[in-house]
Amino acid sequence: MRLRKKPWISQALAEYTDIVYRPPLPDLRGRWREVFGRTAPLHVELGTGKGRFIAGMAEREPAINFVGVEAQQDVLYYAAKKVRERQLSNVRLVVFDINNLLELFAPGEIDRLYINFCDPWPKKRHAKRRLTHSNFLEKYRVVLAPGGQLFFKTDNEKLFEFSLNQFGAMGLKMGNITFDLHNSGYEGNIMTEYEEKFSSQGMRIYRCEVTF
Amino acid sequence: MRLRKKPWISQALAEYTDIVYRPPLPDLRGRWREVFGRTAPLHVELGTGKGRFIAGMAEREPAINFVGVEAQQDVLYYAAKKVRERQLSNVRLVVFDINNLLELFAPGEIDRLYINFCDPWPKKRHAKRRLTHSNFLEKYRVVLAPGGQLFFKTDNEKLFEFSLNQFGAMGLKMGNITFDLHNSGYEGNIMTEYEEKFSSQGMRIYRCEVTF
Repeated sequence: MRLRKKPWISQALAEYTDIVYRPPLPDLRGRWREVFGRTAPLHVELGTGKGRFIAGMAEREPAINFVGVEAQQDVLYYAAKKVRERQLSNVRLVVFDINNLLELFAPGEIDRLYINFCDPWPKKRHAKRRLTHSNFLEKYRVVLAPGGQLFFKTDNEKLFEFSLNQFGAMGLKMGNITFDLHNSGYEGNIMTEYEEKFSSQGMRIYRCEVTF
Repeated sequence: MRLRKKPWISQALAEYTDIVYRPPLPDLRGRWREVFGRTAPLHVELGTGKGRFIAGMAEREPAINFVGVEAQQDVLYYAAKKVRERQLSNVRLVVFDINNLLELFAPGEIDRLYINFCDPWPKKRHAKRRLTHSNFLEKYRVVLAPGGQLFFKTDNEKLFEFSLNQFGAMGLKMGNITFDLHNSGYEGNIMTEYEEKFSSQGMRIYRCEVTF
């Protein structure tokens, strides 16, 4: 998700320090339950963007602690606004580079990861940047609890095909694979901003669940 | 594969008793290496039809013993002709109902199964007839050697989606998943009659390899 740089946002975010954590960050590894002030399953979205998905999920699942990770600070302002407006106490948003995920979460700390419409990086030489590349999966394996899951959706067929192969090569268990989410009978899907826009234009959404 | 009943075929098959085994069959379980007169990996195609695939594979891989299983006797005549014409000593064809697979092969006897363009049985109430339904996979698990594989291709996207989910639910390892075999860079594909006809019309072919 790319936005034009908006200089006022950095200042506006100062009003959301309870929701959005920006660098420099304290060491939060192993301390997320403490951050939320309660013990609850931890679900993390990688690439939160403007937060439609995480806010919707957090609203529907108040018993879950949600962390949204996003490299670009500015988009998180819109996510933070949604969290504040809906008075969601179970969401935190972090400006952070997913490459360094192991510096944000302790081993086994996360129960579920969500990856929604990540950059497909279509060029072969950029394959390692795809968030479902095995190099990333190795990191997810560390931060996920035993039996932890990754829920993945994309509109990019090539990325989906690539991802299934990466999951398969790691010997991960796949389930609820669909090539057309919106016509699959799957209930309770919460759309991202991107998904809402493109699926209304007839774009198919691919989805699957992976168990580590 | 359906053909009009051709009364002359049953008689013509009498000339192929060295290649085509028809009922009543002796008990061949555990005796396939004996049938071929040599110890070699055993690859079995479920639904052999007119035999373009199995004949092509057997020609290319002379060190493998191939068995083609097909419920309909008449189509096997065309398969047997191909085997005879190419002088392939490593192929046997069996008129047999795949539902009874455990009566044809001993536990662990098969190294690889091929399923090509099986009937998709699109109606939900017929799901159990699909050759990738978990009920069938349970049988394949019995007759396959440890680490044995199933190579599966289809042009039916819904069947492919269903199949991936069945494989996933059984915890089987999937690899080389492609949504468009003929544009995937995969080399050495041997086409079935069906595949040749429909892929030339632009139909996409889905394929994957499953390890038990």
